[in-house]
Amino acid sequence: MRLDHADLAKRIERGDRRALARAITLVESSRIDHRAQADDLMERLGAPARSLRIGLSGPPGAGKSTFIESLGPALIKKGHRIAVLAIDPSSVVGGGSILGDKTRMERLSLHADAFIRPTPANTGFGGVARRTPEVIRVVEAAGFDIVIVETVGVGQSEVAVASMSDLFVLLLSPGAGDELQGIKRGIVELADMIFVNKDDGNLAADAARTAADYRKALSLFIGKSEGWPVEVHRCSALTGHGIDDAVDCILRYRRWYEASGALDKRRFEQARAWLWSEITEQLRERVETRPGLGDIVESSERAIASDRISAAAAAKRVIERYFESTMTNEGDER
Amino acid sequence: MRLDHADLAKRIERGDRRALARAITLVESSRIDHRAQADDLMERLGAPARSLRIGLSGPPGAGKSTFIESLGPALIKKGHRIAVLAIDPSSVVGGGSILGDKTRMERLSLHADAFIRPTPANTGFGGVARRTPEVIRVVEAAGFDIVIVETVGVGQSEVAVASMSDLFVLLLSPGAGDELQGIKRGIVELADMIFVNKDDGNLAADAARTAADYRKALSLFIGKSEGWPVEVHRCSALTGHGIDDAVDCILRYRRWYEASGALDKRRFEQARAWLWSEITEQLRERVETRPGLGDIVESSERAIASDRISAAAAAKRVIERYFESTMTNEGDER
Repeated sequence: MRLDHADLAKRIERGDRRALARAITLVESSRIDHRAQADDLMERLGAPARSLRIGLSGPPGAGKSTFIESLGPALIKKGHRIAVLAIDPSSVVGGGSILGDKTRMERLSLHADAFIRPTPANTGFGGVARRTPEVIRVVEAAGFDIVIVETVGVGQSEVAVASMSDLFVLLLSPGAGDELQGIKRGIVELADMIFVNKDDGNLAADAARTAADYRKALSLFIGKSEGWPVEVHRCSALTGHGIDDAVDCILRYRRWYEASGALDKRRFEQARAWLWSEITEQLRERVETRPGLGDIVESSERAIASDRISAAAAAKRVIERYFESTMTNEGDER
Repeated sequence: MRLDHADLAKRIERGDRRALARAITLVESSRIDHRAQADDLMERLGAPARSLRIGLSGPPGAGKSTFIESLGPALIKKGHRIAVLAIDPSSVVGGGSILGDKTRMERLSLHADAFIRPTPANTGFGGVARRTPEVIRVVEAAGFDIVIVETVGVGQSEVAVASMSDLFVLLLSPGAGDELQGIKRGIVELADMIFVNKDDGNLAADAARTAADYRKALSLFIGKSEGWPVEVHRCSALTGHGIDDAVDCILRYRRWYEASGALDKRRFEQARAWLWSEITEQLRERVETRPGLGDIVESSERAIASDRISAAAAAKRVIERYFESTMTNEGDER
């Protein structure tokens, strides 16, 4: 397919959902020709208004999807448009998606001011789809001013999602401490705010205790952002209790985040990290895909395995051969 | 300092400890001129006999140093020579070492057939000193046929140490499950064998229970290596009880590892991972240190931060500018 990117960009900006879906598929593609087309499209999108990028994480069973189903309409009622990118660790690009087959967030997905998209997890960027930052930009161009990136797994992906968020929200179940919830140490420190879900029925007492425990624990830390003390709230995505408070907390955070200069600061730090991550990945891909380097790579692997050369020295030789091949173009002839 | 590397290599092979220490300092140095000298030295060392590379890990307080103090002499008695590289997360290259100041493994360090060296943790290779594989080769050249790499921290460094080990040993304290010992999920799956330490006095009953729990848990997994079922043993580094069993288990493993072909297979897989890790690091360093690229890097960071360009497209431009500068050498003139 050859797309007219100027037209596609215009359709995205008008909020055309089919154009939006098509653009995301293009951006997520690992095909080289698609990459060039995606770069072209991204440039035509220009610089959209800045959305609030929310990373949402929590242990399996905390009720992340139900929470979003409950939070989404409450944010829409306040005049916002919500995009949800659900990172799906069970799928790879082009290999189909388990989440895509399931009817998750069914109610919210029917809403005119909501857009829900499962994103295949990739190995590129800490387990999170390498292209997620670009997908965020595409949905921002379509006028969504709150983008929620939901991680399903627990672990490395949280760090990556936190690194691309303006606001990192941790959703917990009532009950035991970190360890029993399967939250790695360090994840709590990434959070800008914490919600304890399932504050209903039998679990209400546990929810109160969990919230109190986390409040106490957090009082021992210096907050992640200077000027924003981490808040812990209780809610029930099931009954809707506490959801308005959650919305209030998120919108208060947004006002503080924009006014304090934290937005500019954090986005700049993120940009630096992304740039170097991309430079490193692309350089590696160039060497990996260079024709004519297979022999030196294989003989280097054998030599390292039998301790005849250090990995550092072998890598240097491979890189030098790579540069020679780009100079003389001899690699292209194969 | 300008060293005669042929002479230094010969002195290392004769077992000269000052030469050994000097070579390790050179290999660990991040100075560019030292790197070239280190590569030269490594080549002169040739391919030493293959040692058994043991990664030793466990939660803080499991008694790793005491265990090595107890295990070392028992292995020496069987005719082996032991080098211990203790990864020290509290120090960086050139910044001094906390472990180096402490008198750890005092008894073992006095032994003629033992060599103990604290290694500063670096950010290069999953938190483990990027040069640890090379340091291993240097001590192997000095005739140490068992090299123990001890990690102090818990977390990412275990994965890196497991990736450079022939045998990954997990040392546990008697008591609670994984979570309470601060072991991350996934670390247990890296283990080739597990020792429950402190099987003495009041803790003996707990040690028995912990060993039984882990045996049961491991029976649910497929072993890490086909043909080597993970064993769980109890020992007391304090009383020496069970240490001979530990030695026996390690030496049985070594025989199986060499005879089964697992050694060749694992070393080759490790070599491939190291080579690509080094290629990636070195390419990044080349771009980072290239004169004249500062402007495009900074403007790219700003453009990404304000959503005017994707990280992918910006990285591509930086890389292209880098290649242009290497062709024309304009970068060198600054």
